[in-house]
Amino acid sequence: MGKKLDEMTITIVGVGQIGGSFALALKENQAGGKIIGMDKKKVIEKFRTGEIFDSLTFNLDSAVREADFIFLSTPVLTILNLLPQIVQHMKRDAVLLDSGSTKREIVSLMSKYPQRILIGGHPMAGREKPGFESASSTLLENKLFALVFPTKKSLEGKSTVLALLEKIGAIPFEIDGEKHDLVVSLTSHLPYVLSLCLSSLVEDFFNKDTLFKKFISSGFIGATRLSFTQKEMGKGILKSNSSHIIRMIDEYRDRLAGIRSLIEKGNEEEMDRFLGKINRFHSELV
Amino acid sequence: MGKKLDEMTITIVGVGQIGGSFALALKENQAGGKIIGMDKKKVIEKFRTGEIFDSLTFNLDSAVREADFIFLSTPVLTILNLLPQIVQHMKRDAVLLDSGSTKREIVSLMSKYPQRILIGGHPMAGREKPGFESASSTLLENKLFALVFPTKKSLEGKSTVLALLEKIGAIPFEIDGEKHDLVVSLTSHLPYVLSLCLSSLVEDFFNKDTLFKKFISSGFIGATRLSFTQKEMGKGILKSNSSHIIRMIDEYRDRLAGIRSLIEKGNEEEMDRFLGKINRFHSELV
Repeated sequence: MGKKLDEMTITIVGVGQIGGSFALALKENQAGGKIIGMDKKKVIEKFRTGEIFDSLTFNLDSAVREADFIFLSTPVLTILNLLPQIVQHMKRDAVLLDSGSTKREIVSLMSKYPQRILIGGHPMAGREKPGFESASSTLLENKLFALVFPTKKSLEGKSTVLALLEKIGAIPFEIDGEKHDLVVSLTSHLPYVLSLCLSSLVEDFFNKDTLFKKFISSGFIGATRLSFTQKEMGKGILKSNSSHIIRMIDEYRDRLAGIRSLIEKGNEEEMDRFLGKINRFHSELV
Repeated sequence: MGKKLDEMTITIVGVGQIGGSFALALKENQAGGKIIGMDKKKVIEKFRTGEIFDSLTFNLDSAVREADFIFLSTPVLTILNLLPQIVQHMKRDAVLLDSGSTKREIVSLMSKYPQRILIGGHPMAGREKPGFESASSTLLENKLFALVFPTKKSLEGKSTVLALLEKIGAIPFEIDGEKHDLVVSLTSHLPYVLSLCLSSLVEDFFNKDTLFKKFISSGFIGATRLSFTQKEMGKGILKSNSSHIIRMIDEYRDRLAGIRSLIEKGNEEEMDRFLGKINRFHSELV
């Protein structure tokens, strides 16, 4: 690690929910010397200099030029677009960590710059409502933060990243990109797709007969909550992890066919066994 | 309406989450003269006479014999089992309202007693964690309470039921049993089945590789929350509404196939359109 944490200039590219939470956590834990916030003009205009960010800009090049540490927290497709441009302008010894929802494509792009300290990251945290309004200084606290080191060079940034994550209370977890994408295709992306599918089906029924809408309950709202996931973020997930997601959809479809026949058969003992097993599994989970 | 509300003896058969919430709401709103709680011995033993219930018993016959109003709040299959026995022992002018999750089979059974005031009910409220521990005096407040009047005789109880629901702040909504079961098969039962299916799939992956478990997030917990639904309650739903549920599973399966090909194709414009539509639908919903 070169500079001390509290002397570093940290640039947050994308001050939405995750980037905003990272900035708030740095501020609250007095990590980082100067914090620069960078985003689109209309986002940046909502902030006042000196409150959370010491400096605000919608110019990417100038935002990353002076940074010792760059936190790249935009949707996946934007990360893939911005990375080559950032690499051109960042300092040679600066450390970059991203927070994209999928890792394989991002770390594959990172490995094309073996002279740069580029680290893949993904915090297992987030609320469905997007944007800085849902950010909080404790959002990443006690949450797993997956880390992928794609090159030998990237390991030079490890101590800095670990020190920063420790400061904000996140739990670092090293994993390779391919494995990461497989795991989250089940634990995050499949639930997202299932929620999209339920919302899409229900919308059609609502349009046919408004009576359906009267009967929505908290259980239904919970089951469709992930449909809130911001379009750009969702698109990045579906595009950059399509093969794993499709595999999980197929596994789910086969399982659903099994439950369908359990219901059709209507054997109480079989139902008892299945429902009891799920009850036990779920109560051990939470 | 015969007796005034505050002179009535009200028996709650099944003092779980819904029955308990009904009792607490009656108490808080000073409705009902005497409130009797009836359940299995091991449930009843947890209560003290005089706190919420003026009287407690695990004897069904004696519990319903003196009641002016009976609230039958057990899982569906138990309702179907208990109803004939209750009818034998209830007073001729007593009013019975149930709270079962499905209505077609229950009101069909009710209609076999055209000389009794038997009314089908279903509050659109509930938490996943079962039992009295999740009961609250406000659980039914401002929630839709579906009502089915299966016989001409049952209408004699209408004013009493409406007065009681008004007291506790629930919103009465008349519907026929068949329509009710169709609507909730989409809004409640399908989400329940989808959650079961996800839990079941995920359990297998967890057993194969504990790494998956490290990556569970709040989104995943939300998506599987309905798996908590108590086994007996779930079984009643799946058995008594199987044909509608199977229809909804089939609609869902077809829709999922559509989303699968959207992901496989990977056309960004099509994804934008679809995800944008879902974002809009969902933000109008909540």
